[in-house]
Amino acid sequence: MTGFVVDRDEARKALQGLRSTDGAAAEAYARAVWSVLVEPGDGAAGELIAAHGAAGALHVATSAQDEEVRVARARWLPRLRPEAIDAVLDAARRASASLIVPGDDQWPERLDDLGVHAPVALWRRGGGGTSDRPTVALVGARASTAYGEGVAADLAADLSASGAVIVSGAAYGIDGAAHRAALSTGGMTVAFLAGGVDRAYPRGHESLLARIASTGAVWSETPCGAAPTKWRFLARNRLIAAMADAVVVVEAGWRSGSLNTAAHAASLGRALGAVPGPVTSAASAGCHRILRDYGGVCVTSAADVLEMLGRDAREPERLTDRTDDTTRVCDALSPRSARSTAEVARRSGLSVAETGAVLGFAELEGRARRDDDGLWMAMHSRSE
Amino acid sequence: MTGFVVDRDEARKALQGLRSTDGAAAEAYARAVWSVLVEPGDGAAGELIAAHGAAGALHVATSAQDEEVRVARARWLPRLRPEAIDAVLDAARRASASLIVPGDDQWPERLDDLGVHAPVALWRRGGGGTSDRPTVALVGARASTAYGEGVAADLAADLSASGAVIVSGAAYGIDGAAHRAALSTGGMTVAFLAGGVDRAYPRGHESLLARIASTGAVWSETPCGAAPTKWRFLARNRLIAAMADAVVVVEAGWRSGSLNTAAHAASLGRALGAVPGPVTSAASAGCHRILRDYGGVCVTSAADVLEMLGRDAREPERLTDRTDDTTRVCDALSPRSARSTAEVARRSGLSVAETGAVLGFAELEGRARRDDDGLWMAMHSRSE
Repeated sequence: MTGFVVDRDEARKALQGLRSTDGAAAEAYARAVWSVLVEPGDGAAGELIAAHGAAGALHVATSAQDEEVRVARARWLPRLRPEAIDAVLDAARRASASLIVPGDDQWPERLDDLGVHAPVALWRRGGGGTSDRPTVALVGARASTAYGEGVAADLAADLSASGAVIVSGAAYGIDGAAHRAALSTGGMTVAFLAGGVDRAYPRGHESLLARIASTGAVWSETPCGAAPTKWRFLARNRLIAAMADAVVVVEAGWRSGSLNTAAHAASLGRALGAVPGPVTSAASAGCHRILRDYGGVCVTSAADVLEMLGRDAREPERLTDRTDDTTRVCDALSPRSARSTAEVARRSGLSVAETGAVLGFAELEGRARRDDDGLWMAMHSRSE
Repeated sequence: MTGFVVDRDEARKALQGLRSTDGAAAEAYARAVWSVLVEPGDGAAGELIAAHGAAGALHVATSAQDEEVRVARARWLPRLRPEAIDAVLDAARRASASLIVPGDDQWPERLDDLGVHAPVALWRRGGGGTSDRPTVALVGARASTAYGEGVAADLAADLSASGAVIVSGAAYGIDGAAHRAALSTGGMTVAFLAGGVDRAYPRGHESLLARIASTGAVWSETPCGAAPTKWRFLARNRLIAAMADAVVVVEAGWRSGSLNTAAHAASLGRALGAVPGPVTSAASAGCHRILRDYGGVCVTSAADVLEMLGRDAREPERLTDRTDDTTRVCDALSPRSARSTAEVARRSGLSVAETGAVLGFAELEGRARRDDDGLWMAMHSRSE
């Protein structure tokens, strides 16, 4: 079932009777209702739905006197007004927003990692955005610098070109730079909003959101018409983290909301990275916190992110001592004066036999040459 | 025994007879001889000295036919020339360089962590530099940027002011900036050279080295007159790492010698940090390698380094979700229109009872206020 067509009469039936000839349809409608009743991540609702199904849980919430949901019921019931549900369904229809519920083939299964805090349903503008392709969240400060926006754009473009989906939050600053660069390279990008998908937020990103929806998707767990509140921004961040295989914070102030996304990534076991910047830049202070205190990977390029995804298991070069006999012998050579093997041995602190062998290799490597008298000279000038 | 006075006749006696009425003096002389015979970090010499003492080991090396040191002997003996030893001792006297050997109260015991690769002896200009004070190595690229030099100077000044000794390598760039800032704040700084302490290297740092020696110390394990070779620079790096409680790389190119110092720090169990910079700066690429691949701590300030030293066990703030009911309730308030508790409950998705309690706390915190009709308003405008 894809892009469930929202029908007000069916919705009303689900709300009132919690029965339908089509069990799946009743469940979907009930989830739409639940998305109106709860704030994002309501674990009590999640548990009730897990236990009874969405329609059954609605029945328990509205009719039973079950003591265990008494407190939660007091939270939900003030919103259980048929006209509010109607308004959401109308707004979704006007915005061509689809309802996607768990079990739907368009449902992003990565979100199931959130357990009882997974969304009860998602609303979507646009038809793309779920795939088995590697997915990278690029997030960061609204108060970004030209440096951060440039790095975000480079990462998004390079990762898009390598086939990754770019997830972000459509905010000004880093988010916008990431979405735009992904779009400009013909890549797939998706946005998660804190309010309803029918509301462009921020307003200045209305056309950007339309472009994202036209090739990817704009998602929200809050129903159409819902305002983006601080709580919903924070809750939205968990969806960005859960949707991604890797979360990379590009720029973030010391108390940026991006640290909240990073915390969700860490708790979900997603790969977490941060882009460093000058220590003198307040816009990088949050990134440095992630690197120092939260085990974030230092990300300097798309290759670093691909490595985090396990797609490019490039062998990290070992930090070797880089101290070998060849270095000692070559140090003992001069580019100007020819020296005997014995003299080179004395200068290098190796034996004459060792020195002779090493000089042979150095000659093969083009680092030493031998004159007609058998004396040795360096091929390169000496430097530290 | 401090600042062993180098006496040529005694040295000659040690070299020829390996006996003296003063056992400690014979050992010190023998170590001076060993410092001429070996290249830094010669493990075979270290093992032999550990087994037989320095004078005894010299006896084994020069007279015995012991098969196990045959190869090493071939390395050492080309340098065993009395006139070479004499020249070193003369140069040391001219430079007012002291010989410091293991067991001397001026010997930096941290170097003993190098085991058989510890220096056989050290030569020192200046009288300071060993102490129980926390010691931080600040090292980095010669090809530094103004950014890196500024950060190095800030770190060195702040760490000096907090009582730490600053160790570095006296090179151009980061090293020089660190030494200078430590000196200018009246702090203690010491330098380790790759060549003899009587040779100013680099030449342009001759007066800087004199200033370091006048208040701290300039050290080398290579004898006076020794040229700084590539091998000796690499070997010198292990002394900087061993001397420090924490090693911080401020700027370093992708293949900088500072990575070698970092590798030594890691293998010695010293705290290792690196200062991040713009990912677009080649001078920070080596630092980012240390952060990404080698477990380096992201250092942005002297406070970070003090934390590495365990001197300021500041509690890292937890990456919390920062999602609480107060946020949800305050989101539901307006600074312009007064709302009833029931209305706030509906908007926040909490029960009326929960909302009432939360509003009470929010009022105490100055985030909400109540008008004469008992209606609630926000004290601050809403933002993400």
